Amino acid sequence: MTLVHSTDIFQYHFRIYLDDTDAGGIVYHANHLKYLERTRREWLRHKGLAHYSLGSDYQFVVHSATLQYKKALRMDDEITVTTTLHELKPASMVLSQQIYLGHLDIALASAAELRNSLATDASVKLACVNQELKPSALPKELFNILTTL
Amino acid sequence: MTLVHSTDIFQYHFRIYLDDTDAGGIVYHANHLKYLERTRREWLRHKGLAHYSLGSDYQFVVHSATLQYKKALRMDDEITVTTTLHELKPASMVLSQQIYLGHLDIALASAAELRNSLATDASVKLACVNQELKPSALPKELFNILTTL
Amino acid sequence: MTLVHSTDIFQYHFRIYLDDTDAGGIVYHANHLKYLERTRREWLRHKGLAHYSLGSDYQFVVHSATLQYKKALRMDDEITVTTTLHELKPASMVLSQQIYLGHLDIALASAAELRNSLATDASVKLACVNQELKPSALPKELFNILTTL
Amino acid sequence: MTLVHSTDIFQYHFRIYLDDTDAGGIVYHANHLKYLERTRREWLRHKGLAHYSLGSDYQFVVHSATLQYKKALRMDDEITVTTTLHELKPASMVLSQQIYLGHLDIALASAAELRNSLATDASVKLACVNQELKPSALPKELFNILTTL
Repeated sequence: MTLVHSTDIFQYHFRIYLDDTDAGGIVYHANHLKYLERTRREWLRHKGLAHYSLGSDYQFVVHSATLQYKKALRMDDEITVTTTLHELKPASMVLSQQIYLGHLDIALASAAELRNSLATDASVKLACVNQELKPSALPKELFNILTTL
Repeated sequence: MTLVHSTDIFQYHFRIYLDDTDAGGIVYHANHLKYLERTRREWLRHKGLAHYSLGSDYQFVVHSATLQYKKALRMDDEITVTTTLHELKPASMVLSQQIYLGHLDIALASAAELRNSLATDASVKLACVNQELKPSALPKELFNILTTL
Repeated sequence: MTLVHSTDIFQYHFRIYLDDTDAGGIVYHANHLKYLERTRREWLRHKGLAHYSLGSDYQFVVHSATLQYKKALRMDDEITVTTTLHELKPASMVLSQQIYLGHLDIALASAAELRNSLATDASVKLACVNQELKPSALPKELFNILTTL
Repeated sequence: MTLVHSTDIFQYHFRIYLDDTDAGGIVYHANHLKYLERTRREWLRHKGLAHYSLGSDYQFVVHSATLQYKKALRMDDEITVTTTLHELKPASMVLSQQIYLGHLDIALASAAELRNSLATDASVKLACVNQELKPSALPKELFNILTTL
């Protein structure tokens, strides 16, 4: 569960446990979204938002997501999940996210290795909303953190 | 998803879907607790607590639970879940809950049928807490509802 | 969301329980995919595939999915989930699926009602695979069922 | 919670993410069982059962579980989960398991620290079953591993 920062791709590692699999013997497809979201949380933590909390006056909700499933994930597998800020607007952001099978270091892996281990390719748009779930501009502090790194 | 009230045992029916199973081919053991909790919610709804909400000034949390797993549940199975108020105190209650394999009518099933289809036998103690998760007496209205039926 | 004649649209109803919500007070975004998948299962059951089983020599896996989240779902909400066969190929199919807030009858609802209650708009591509998760033609029986109704 | 010499206690650390919380703002009670199960998996991996697989001729199923919830877990919390072999029989075992709030080192923590951070106290009985889910003696290799450490 170590994290590395490579230029602007953030990566995080997870292990697959039984509770995320289904009777087909592979990870239930909805659970891939969990790994993406956990990695976004670690990315924000890495950027200093350690105290980001749902109790504050804003939160992110998923506005839309596109997922391409390329490889099945199974119990005991290790995965590497990446997140890259693709677009930042005042009240939303688009992230490109990938799940790779295996414990990789994205910064060192060859293009062929990445291509061969790509399990899920996703694009996720997050909207910043207030307590009433209405669109709301990202807090300046957060906007600055996201634009300066 | 019909409900029947038999003396003091409340029953509710669910279908098992793929997302609750695991790679062992059966329902992941933690998910049995979900069926028990959904049935408690339907039991309270049946008693008139249609607007019970987490936004109010109290909520129930699980204080303790004991589970005995007797039969595996599988995708596409129908189950019958029961709940019976076993003990009611000012700030807590103990419920006896069972999961039966199949779409049964508890009021009509024979003792042998019930014994043979029993999948999970559980006892769950709920504590009533306030917004700060501190123990809190059940609202009088709720206490009355639970004691008069 | 393409328009399809209502007799082609299958609908199913679910209740939202606590276990699908998250600390943001709404249904965790990945769980919307569960409702879509459960509805696909009910659609196939409705078409006579009551005994479709993961133990057989084929299964469906999700190849890709696109989701647009338009309304938050909350505990105790009732939802109506639809599925429409958009494209059928020898080893895959594309389904258009929607989640509507409330217990609607799609065949009777006005266009305005549908638009106002639309919570999630999705497109899901399923691939038919064999036991080794390799692409496999849909069994003829299944292909016939899907094309004749 | 029986006292066991610390060298016999296996510990593992997890982070709590949004997907495990519910609208009450805390981890949904069923999900505590996931942390216990993941820790049992890591415990077996630590003992050399790296290739334990559901595809082999045996698996473990949960026979019964008792849980006492003492502290709520919240998003972003770190937890320390322990597992101790309490009883080993030819076809079953009983494990004592605890969830502590915070990233602790059980071997170094004082009794007061442990008492104050105890979030869940559990006892879990596992049964070894064959492919047909019938009781089956633990493989000798596994039995030896569990008794020699």
